[in-house]
Amino acid sequence: MALPQVSIDYIDPHTYPKGIAYADNQYLDMSKAKLSILDYGFLHSDATYDVVHVWKGSFFRLDLYLDRFFSGLEKLHMSIPYSKDEVSRILHNCVALSGHKNAYVEMICTRGNSPSFSRDPRDVINRFMAFAVPFGSVSNPKLMKQGTHAAINPTVRIPPSSIDPSIKNYHWLDLIKGLYDAYSQGGETAILLDTVGNVTEGPGFNIFCVKDRTIKTPDLGILPGITRRTVFDLCNTLNITCEATTVTPAQLEDADEVFISSTAGCIMPITKINQKTIGNGSPGPLFQLLKDAFWEKHENSEWSLPINYNG
Amino acid sequence: MALPQVSIDYIDPHTYPKGIAYADNQYLDMSKAKLSILDYGFLHSDATYDVVHVWKGSFFRLDLYLDRFFSGLEKLHMSIPYSKDEVSRILHNCVALSGHKNAYVEMICTRGNSPSFSRDPRDVINRFMAFAVPFGSVSNPKLMKQGTHAAINPTVRIPPSSIDPSIKNYHWLDLIKGLYDAYSQGGETAILLDTVGNVTEGPGFNIFCVKDRTIKTPDLGILPGITRRTVFDLCNTLNITCEATTVTPAQLEDADEVFISSTAGCIMPITKINQKTIGNGSPGPLFQLLKDAFWEKHENSEWSLPINYNG
Repeated sequence: MALPQVSIDYIDPHTYPKGIAYADNQYLDMSKAKLSILDYGFLHSDATYDVVHVWKGSFFRLDLYLDRFFSGLEKLHMSIPYSKDEVSRILHNCVALSGHKNAYVEMICTRGNSPSFSRDPRDVINRFMAFAVPFGSVSNPKLMKQGTHAAINPTVRIPPSSIDPSIKNYHWLDLIKGLYDAYSQGGETAILLDTVGNVTEGPGFNIFCVKDRTIKTPDLGILPGITRRTVFDLCNTLNITCEATTVTPAQLEDADEVFISSTAGCIMPITKINQKTIGNGSPGPLFQLLKDAFWEKHENSEWSLPINYNG
Repeated sequence: MALPQVSIDYIDPHTYPKGIAYADNQYLDMSKAKLSILDYGFLHSDATYDVVHVWKGSFFRLDLYLDRFFSGLEKLHMSIPYSKDEVSRILHNCVALSGHKNAYVEMICTRGNSPSFSRDPRDVINRFMAFAVPFGSVSNPKLMKQGTHAAINPTVRIPPSSIDPSIKNYHWLDLIKGLYDAYSQGGETAILLDTVGNVTEGPGFNIFCVKDRTIKTPDLGILPGITRRTVFDLCNTLNITCEATTVTPAQLEDADEVFISSTAGCIMPITKINQKTIGNGSPGPLFQLLKDAFWEKHENSEWSLPINYNG
């Protein structure tokens, strides 16, 4: 059989969300934003990233996301040729060029690619990328309003003894397994446990439960989410007790309210855990209070940074 | 400040190893082999893969690698529109078009990309890719001959309770941390432990130790490597006892010989563990015997499949 021809250029048959990306000093349509399949950010998931959202034309708490991203770079022995201000400018430009008023904005650093395919990570030049696409959620609009059904999964979230969860990372196969298991149990999302059976987090979100007007959220084996931190900040302002502590599956099932936090979706209600309806099955009053306060804060100039869509 | 221009096409300033890749029915130069940065194979490391090597113009034990790859696809709820024979043909064509007589050949399936950026993995069309680049090693030629210095690291290899290690996956941040820690201790590679302190594996390899002519290799928390399996097969032929069992760090340090196995490098000697010299500090006799038998098997038509470089 004759060998096939090598194509001169790759013709991409896939479609992508509308948006703008940045790589190697170039701003690109999302359909052109590509990574070599030899980049160790892919082949070893050797990368860190962060995601900030833009709402009604303004970044929300961008400084905190930049701090976490730069802290992850340091922990992974990575460096990029940009300051926080320069990254901020790149993210701004991606959003402005995309025209999106509500956007999901990601900054990424991969280990990069070695021309000689060396396995020594010190031989590789780190690579920075960023993109802005329409604001999206870990859930969907109907579930975000009415409440999501979460299934607690026996899969153990990758433990801190393996990977420092404060480095925001792409290691999601445990969370993906949790999702498929949840679907097969009639759930819409998953909650994973730690090695001793306590609650950790779900695919892209932190978890909170309310009992007798006290809020609890897991303290270990989790990404310290910026939206999670915002919940603490709001609770402080609203004089609501909120504790980072051990949370058991039983505590979740017995809660008056359960809700989750994520930059992709913000604060969202959970109304069923496994086969147990939470409260009366509708989003609860503390959730509603915090959610309203959360969106109000987007109007506050202290926490928001407007995009200049005309440059 | 005026907004920057959006570039029409991405100009890639990076250089890549010589080789040929396959994606979407196209054979491409390695420099054109790209993945969207929105592919969940990257953003969630939601992918499986396998690597087979070509030596002196023939695949080695390709059928076993294909079996493992297809088994991983099933475990991850992924599917590709190709049979094993068709994947085999694609890999063959990548190697033949590359002209490489000794090659590192990878087949990949990613979850793929969702046009609406949905987080539900069931909404995504899985994506198959493959590539052939020059044969490489997890080590370097000098160390492969003289022996490598490995440092045992307290980082816990991602446990099977989080991710089934029989699904070959890209979750390497624990191994990368191990490597950086090893470098800072004067080592050249790392060995990771499990949650109870037993030996697991290193970055891209399985581990064996020899004591009184008996070979032991860890049985849990490891990728069941094809080269590892080949070591068992060769031991069987050569009448050497080889056991998959618990291996402690102390057993490694006290061994007469230590060696590692990987498709990227095959069988390679370890001559120092932490600060302890293994044996007399040179590659040992059982290692040498197995290594020679290993390369001899590449001449055996039962285990090898020749590439037809002319199609």
